[in-house]
Amino acid sequence: MDTTYTITDLALSLDTVWMLLAAMLVFFMQPGFALVEAGFTRTKNTANIMMKNLLDFMMGSLLFWAVGFGFMFGTGGFIGMPHLFNFSFYDTELPVAGFLVFQTVFCATASTIVSGAMAERTKFSMYLAYTILISVIIYPVSGHWTWGGGWLMNGEEGSFMMNTFGTTFHDFAGSTIVHSVGGWIALVGAAILGPRIGKYDKDKKSRAIPGHNLALASLGVFILWFGWFGFNPGSQLAASGEGNRTAISHVFLTTNLAACAGGIFSLLVAWFKYKKPSLSLTLNGVLAGLVGITAGCDLVSPMGAAIIGAICGTVMIFAVDFIDHVLKIDDPVGASSVHGVCGCLGTILTGFLATEEGLFYSGSANFLGAQLFGAVVVGCWAAGMGYVVFKGLDMVHGLRVPARVEEEGLDIYEHGETAYNS
Amino acid sequence: MDTTYTITDLALSLDTVWMLLAAMLVFFMQPGFALVEAGFTRTKNTANIMMKNLLDFMMGSLLFWAVGFGFMFGTGGFIGMPHLFNFSFYDTELPVAGFLVFQTVFCATASTIVSGAMAERTKFSMYLAYTILISVIIYPVSGHWTWGGGWLMNGEEGSFMMNTFGTTFHDFAGSTIVHSVGGWIALVGAAILGPRIGKYDKDKKSRAIPGHNLALASLGVFILWFGWFGFNPGSQLAASGEGNRTAISHVFLTTNLAACAGGIFSLLVAWFKYKKPSLSLTLNGVLAGLVGITAGCDLVSPMGAAIIGAICGTVMIFAVDFIDHVLKIDDPVGASSVHGVCGCLGTILTGFLATEEGLFYSGSANFLGAQLFGAVVVGCWAAGMGYVVFKGLDMVHGLRVPARVEEEGLDIYEHGETAYNS
Amino acid sequence: MDTTYTITDLALSLDTVWMLLAAMLVFFMQPGFALVEAGFTRTKNTANIMMKNLLDFMMGSLLFWAVGFGFMFGTGGFIGMPHLFNFSFYDTELPVAGFLVFQTVFCATASTIVSGAMAERTKFSMYLAYTILISVIIYPVSGHWTWGGGWLMNGEEGSFMMNTFGTTFHDFAGSTIVHSVGGWIALVGAAILGPRIGKYDKDKKSRAIPGHNLALASLGVFILWFGWFGFNPGSQLAASGEGNRTAISHVFLTTNLAACAGGIFSLLVAWFKYKKPSLSLTLNGVLAGLVGITAGCDLVSPMGAAIIGAICGTVMIFAVDFIDHVLKIDDPVGASSVHGVCGCLGTILTGFLATEEGLFYSGSANFLGAQLFGAVVVGCWAAGMGYVVFKGLDMVHGLRVPARVEEEGLDIYEHGETAYNS
Repeated sequence: MDTTYTITDLALSLDTVWMLLAAMLVFFMQPGFALVEAGFTRTKNTANIMMKNLLDFMMGSLLFWAVGFGFMFGTGGFIGMPHLFNFSFYDTELPVAGFLVFQTVFCATASTIVSGAMAERTKFSMYLAYTILISVIIYPVSGHWTWGGGWLMNGEEGSFMMNTFGTTFHDFAGSTIVHSVGGWIALVGAAILGPRIGKYDKDKKSRAIPGHNLALASLGVFILWFGWFGFNPGSQLAASGEGNRTAISHVFLTTNLAACAGGIFSLLVAWFKYKKPSLSLTLNGVLAGLVGITAGCDLVSPMGAAIIGAICGTVMIFAVDFIDHVLKIDDPVGASSVHGVCGCLGTILTGFLATEEGLFYSGSANFLGAQLFGAVVVGCWAAGMGYVVFKGLDMVHGLRVPARVEEEGLDIYEHGETAYNS
Repeated sequence: MDTTYTITDLALSLDTVWMLLAAMLVFFMQPGFALVEAGFTRTKNTANIMMKNLLDFMMGSLLFWAVGFGFMFGTGGFIGMPHLFNFSFYDTELPVAGFLVFQTVFCATASTIVSGAMAERTKFSMYLAYTILISVIIYPVSGHWTWGGGWLMNGEEGSFMMNTFGTTFHDFAGSTIVHSVGGWIALVGAAILGPRIGKYDKDKKSRAIPGHNLALASLGVFILWFGWFGFNPGSQLAASGEGNRTAISHVFLTTNLAACAGGIFSLLVAWFKYKKPSLSLTLNGVLAGLVGITAGCDLVSPMGAAIIGAICGTVMIFAVDFIDHVLKIDDPVGASSVHGVCGCLGTILTGFLATEEGLFYSGSANFLGAQLFGAVVVGCWAAGMGYVVFKGLDMVHGLRVPARVEEEGLDIYEHGETAYNS
Repeated sequence: MDTTYTITDLALSLDTVWMLLAAMLVFFMQPGFALVEAGFTRTKNTANIMMKNLLDFMMGSLLFWAVGFGFMFGTGGFIGMPHLFNFSFYDTELPVAGFLVFQTVFCATASTIVSGAMAERTKFSMYLAYTILISVIIYPVSGHWTWGGGWLMNGEEGSFMMNTFGTTFHDFAGSTIVHSVGGWIALVGAAILGPRIGKYDKDKKSRAIPGHNLALASLGVFILWFGWFGFNPGSQLAASGEGNRTAISHVFLTTNLAACAGGIFSLLVAWFKYKKPSLSLTLNGVLAGLVGITAGCDLVSPMGAAIIGAICGTVMIFAVDFIDHVLKIDDPVGASSVHGVCGCLGTILTGFLATEEGLFYSGSANFLGAQLFGAVVVGCWAAGMGYVVFKGLDMVHGLRVPARVEEEGLDIYEHGETAYNS
């Protein structure tokens, strides 16, 4: 090796490897989401579900490269400048192509969350149209306000957040920015679509429609959990030096503890509430813990992480119940409870549990306010835009497949093939 | 990048990335184990199996953090000092939170191995109780004797091992410490539980109960193999410098060659013995090779690794036969043969095949004795404690589900849901 | 940490970690291939397919270590010197054991591609025989001509390629060297075997034989995509320094964009051609894009990558149609179209789309000629040798199982077990 590197050079290379490893892992969450959604629904729609999860990633990757990245990271107030297919404007010491990929897989995560809540009754073409809008507008705009350096995370003196709260909104890896954006859109979409045929009986009583393959759903959750070790520790975007290597280790630990506490508390609450330790609810409990810790995984202690996981795992059970039985919204996989409710909740809990003994924290009494404000603002943006998009699509073209297609399965009618044969 | 790092600083950061990558991969072995167990058993118990594999990881993570890590790595003779939820006592240049996670996933591996041998007939509540005991006591204590710096690996002058053998026990990544601990407990547990209904006919002749999904079982084995590239090369806990990067490459190669030789020899022996090249036995042969090489992957040559793999793959076939037909113990997935027998065997074969031309080895004539001694001591501890725990649980509460539950499936009765629906 | 490292030392360690990470990911493509093949075929042959995919990796690993690596990287003209089990001859600053593993997983990829095209009717013993020949001869020889430093990639003054084209053949990660080698052998093998019973009716009209599990096939494609982030970015074999970290980021991005464009264009073309957006064809479109970009992922711009993906995704649809309906060759998974046609096509398109604004490129007007020449030479070698091997095996022993075995399934007759049970 005759090239001479500097130490800074090597540090950036190590950070690049860490960022790309994280991007790989977050990419791998895509089949995780697909398996959870397919496993929790019926055989007759499996090909459609796989197709949707493929498509939102493929469309998202191309569109985020084309315009989304510019909207999110370009200069501008409400929205960044679009830079058609040109991402070199972004100023980073890390290779910008790698940074684009890293941001792309996060955008795709927000997008794919919605798929589950709208499963088994949405027209494939309408899902494509929606995917375009989330990748191009909804996600990049609230992303611009936050990770893009916009007003919610602008910590300069005199900025809105500093004036109001004395601190900025904190969402380390995207409890709000990724998960609750996806989750709230999911809730609105499921509400506008209406429940699946047979989900509620004549007295409006909810009936369980069991998933067709809990083995695949379980594998999906394990894959998501694995991918989350890229999602959260990777969001440090650096591994070099004591501060960074301590931070990624800390985030890895808090992420795992929250997942475990989430799963166990869901299990216990479900056991107590429904008299059986349910696999489906435990799986969603793991995801609830993971979603919840994502905002504050860098700021809370290991015990704080376990507490966040436990609270999210518990609340998720009641949120699923509330959305199903009270709101009468049919979310086949619980995406709005897991990603919407727990994403929001985890962001707010960070305001309570962030600790100065933790890492990097220089909080203030107003931190909780900033967290609440950010979670609500981003949530309103996502839900509002989701409403506009889905209502619009519904009026123009109709979101929902005809009853016969829904009853016989989307696979045959929409894709001309069935997922399972002999 | 305005921070100035030192070379040592970067080296520790690279080592941290390597350790965390390994931890991710070993975590990902959990769905590998779950799929192997589910695939090798029947549809009616799949949800229960997924649940057990989730639970042992979740409980294990929280308990190892709470007390297990202190028992294993704290100061003390028989057992380390417990440090409730506090892991900062451990003196390491690597971030201790990362080291805790790394050790946690190894503990969870030992724990999850047992699940397979006890599949299809164990009460879910009893599996939880057992999981607590292995994560808190059984694994940490023998772990303390070895990786915790205890008497089996204490190389100071005048220590028991140095006085007796002139060398310490060597188990690089846990053939004995992880796999045979899990495997021997599995054997004892399966024996105490008794065989599944229908496994032995009235003349005590064994009947095969085929697994419900060999595609998932195969995927599980591939995932485990993938994860093992974290388990073994990761156990170097460092990648910086020529010694470390050569070592992790060497360990990667020996691990892969042993897996391949294990699979091929199992295939050939099964083909000869049963006249058909069996997929199930080949899958277990790969695992046998991987378990076998884990102790000595750093010390043996590539050829030595292939030999260990070939021997373990061969012996596994006969061990399965012996446990099933002679001992009449019903181990649905062959966990005791793969992890118990081959873990022990690989540890002992390291005593024969470690080579000074290899890496880091400074052996002596007594090395084989030390290996045998360590494998037997740890094996007796695990099997003995497993006996105490399972007999105790069985007497207090009964380990086994009622016959009707077993016949109709644990999924419905224990969890109120079935894994497969339309 | 009391060891003192140099900067060069750390750079090599970081590069080693990157290489080993890539090797892990490429290894993990094995279950990806297995799931795609199993998912696209019928339940009765699933165990056989898993077995083949296990076996080609296990045999390949041992044989490439034993002789293949020497044939590929040893000195020599047509073929390298064999070095029985000794790989230390190879001169590299990276640990040679790691380099051997890295090369092994690429060899195994070439080998496993063939399995899909010959699925559901090939004798297991004949598949083993073929696997030996590809791992020992076919792949190492054309590998020697290229990555082994042989005549197709020899850039010294006066060499054949420099004299003829003024530049050497370029195949960054193996569109031709790995994928089209596998794909052309697959095509020849499927042709010699003949179609599956029932594939063509009495009028020679093709009938679709649907795959048994598109959920598993989809998971397989996602796993392959994930593994490709090792296959392509990993082929840089270095991450240290600005040039390398920029390159691996660039390759990561181009790889992903080509996959996305491949999938979307396959979807659109299939939608237009067959009136339905087909999941199976979209899955193969993703693979077509990935295969196509593999040769030039380092040389083309992101837009060039999207164009290559789009062309490969489109051409793949017509190639599948042509091979099935015109050539009447039964390739159950489309391996010859995806890997053969698109591997070749991507290599040639690199000649059109490589850009000086890209990275590292110093092209010339003759570059396209060199790409065409290399793709054709290697393709002829693979197809020709495939013909010799399969014709030879067919004459000596018969490649194909008896009709009854084919009709009732290879699992029972060849392996004595079925993949699916209750």
